[in-house]
Amino acid sequence: MENLLDGIETITLMGPGPSCVNSSVLNAMSKSTIGHLDPSFIKIMDAIKDQLKNLLHTDNQLTIPISGTGSAGMECTFVNLIEKDDPVLILINGVFGMRMQDVATRLGVKVDTVEFEWGTPVIVDEVKKKLSGNKYKIVAVVHAETSTGVKNPVAEIGKLLTGSDTIYLVDAVTSLGGIEITMDDWGIDVLYSGTQKCLSCPPGLSPVSFSEKAVDAIKQRKTKVPNWYLDLTMIMNYWEGATRAYHHTAPINMLYGLYQALHLISEEGESNVYKRHMDNHLLLADGLKKIGIEMLVDEDSRLPMLNSVHIPEGADDAAIRSGLLKEHKIEIGAGLGPLAGKIWRIGLMGHTARPENVEKLLSALKAVL
Amino acid sequence: MENLLDGIETITLMGPGPSCVNSSVLNAMSKSTIGHLDPSFIKIMDAIKDQLKNLLHTDNQLTIPISGTGSAGMECTFVNLIEKDDPVLILINGVFGMRMQDVATRLGVKVDTVEFEWGTPVIVDEVKKKLSGNKYKIVAVVHAETSTGVKNPVAEIGKLLTGSDTIYLVDAVTSLGGIEITMDDWGIDVLYSGTQKCLSCPPGLSPVSFSEKAVDAIKQRKTKVPNWYLDLTMIMNYWEGATRAYHHTAPINMLYGLYQALHLISEEGESNVYKRHMDNHLLLADGLKKIGIEMLVDEDSRLPMLNSVHIPEGADDAAIRSGLLKEHKIEIGAGLGPLAGKIWRIGLMGHTARPENVEKLLSALKAVL
Repeated sequence: MENLLDGIETITLMGPGPSCVNSSVLNAMSKSTIGHLDPSFIKIMDAIKDQLKNLLHTDNQLTIPISGTGSAGMECTFVNLIEKDDPVLILINGVFGMRMQDVATRLGVKVDTVEFEWGTPVIVDEVKKKLSGNKYKIVAVVHAETSTGVKNPVAEIGKLLTGSDTIYLVDAVTSLGGIEITMDDWGIDVLYSGTQKCLSCPPGLSPVSFSEKAVDAIKQRKTKVPNWYLDLTMIMNYWEGATRAYHHTAPINMLYGLYQALHLISEEGESNVYKRHMDNHLLLADGLKKIGIEMLVDEDSRLPMLNSVHIPEGADDAAIRSGLLKEHKIEIGAGLGPLAGKIWRIGLMGHTARPENVEKLLSALKAVL
Repeated sequence: MENLLDGIETITLMGPGPSCVNSSVLNAMSKSTIGHLDPSFIKIMDAIKDQLKNLLHTDNQLTIPISGTGSAGMECTFVNLIEKDDPVLILINGVFGMRMQDVATRLGVKVDTVEFEWGTPVIVDEVKKKLSGNKYKIVAVVHAETSTGVKNPVAEIGKLLTGSDTIYLVDAVTSLGGIEITMDDWGIDVLYSGTQKCLSCPPGLSPVSFSEKAVDAIKQRKTKVPNWYLDLTMIMNYWEGATRAYHHTAPINMLYGLYQALHLISEEGESNVYKRHMDNHLLLADGLKKIGIEMLVDEDSRLPMLNSVHIPEGADDAAIRSGLLKEHKIEIGAGLGPLAGKIWRIGLMGHTARPENVEKLLSALKAVL
């Protein structure tokens, strides 16, 4: 009987995620499945919480991976915090800011927004102006806007909210593991991420972290969380404490993979990992410039792990991407929304961020263009 | 640096799931991650849909795995179908029927129920009585109640709903791959399952299937699905059609595992797989009887893959389970809710359902009791 898995080739994943996965992470995922209440598994869960707390520079006890991809993390943070009529402000400069707005709106609240041009960062002064006349329960922003390659000034926005009751919620799907996040110092109350970007683990889990203030807000809800699967008031009883009450069956082998991916970052050293991302980004930007390909984003706001570039004039977007994939076994990403057909998104995330991959892509681009 | 994964031992998983995973499934999960829009991956997605349709005996086009565990499948089916004030009937005889009630109630509807004693099946005549005076949008029941080991008469309940507008929703988390399900013949409109039971894949995915009638009900919603992550109106555009619009990043490697697990069932032959479950169940029940351990459920309603047994008088529940795990590397399950401390749940799911495992457990039980 034909088995399609036999035909899977190794692709250099240089799109907006998933990224290349280290073989030790893939091997970790193929270890024997054990029970979700097995004491050995509880130890791995506890270790993952510590690994995530270290990487996020947070003391938040509620720092766990959610059993779904990054978008499940987004859903989880909003659905646990929002109750009817809660005022929410979302800062938007790309697809993922818009997704936040869609997620929150579906939960029955009126969402206020400040929008910025795609490809440019959130302007802190405009946020300040918006905040001066309004009081919000939640202010949310994307750290690394994967649709444009823009880094938003998350620390500076955090300063605007210091001492307020507002919950500061940050999307760190693409940033975690690629650039510094000091969650507590930056005043971030709630954060979610994904495994398939700079953590270089296959997609399937979403690390989240909630400050004490945010956990209190959940505990003070007047209504039950309208999403059983993502209800943290129950999930935390599985991830914390002595009893470890079963909620849903944790994705055991995915968690092995996450453990190993975080272990690798810890072994390499966090600052080395960030430097490697930046070095390879600079190498790529330099190489692209030499072949006449321009970056979309101004230097100050560029993400090292997600490089948006203008598609060269006359180049056939889909044909070039398809040629890279078929002939050179390299995947790069298309533009989204208003940037579709205008940009490519070149990922240098996690294990992908290596000089040999940059060189490989540059040669391939020269060949196909 | 210490690596906790080095300490993972192979455990014979004879609890209520996860079950033992065939090494070829674990190997499949460790294959290179490729992109979620890669044409090779789309082929695997299409094949998984066909594999699931075959196993479920359904023509439903919308037959896909949801990116979360079985409970995410439960959440997905209810949240896509339910709108405010929709009348819902749930038949309850265990934890998972109760969970359905909780999930549905949180979505803002008043849930009507008929309850049956735990350890006994749903009585069709009582359902008939309930239906005679009431009209429901959804009638929901659990096929294999994992908390008790009871098989509910899903086909017979389906007959009561033939020709009606009611959507018949069935939880097949524990039944799929272990006992026959002929979804279309039985009049089931909507079904969800999980990978970590009789499919013998690690936890992390939830196959779901929706009939045309159910898809129409979703399309006719007056309000958006209040759950972005699980909104099938968007997810189906990724799993169907020519464009394959990105919704969220699919859990690539988990899907490799599911493909391989379904491939194994297909190679062994569906009826052989069911026979293997039944044979091993009979072997276990017989062996248990010989050492004085009684089944909880009457023979007519017993599930082959989930054997609930009375804890022998004087036996220390937790100590025995812990002894089996530590000394014999066998996991069995505890009782839940009113059955906690009263029963053990012995799983013979998927790859676990083999004579050598039955023998191993029986010897171990003799040793620890």
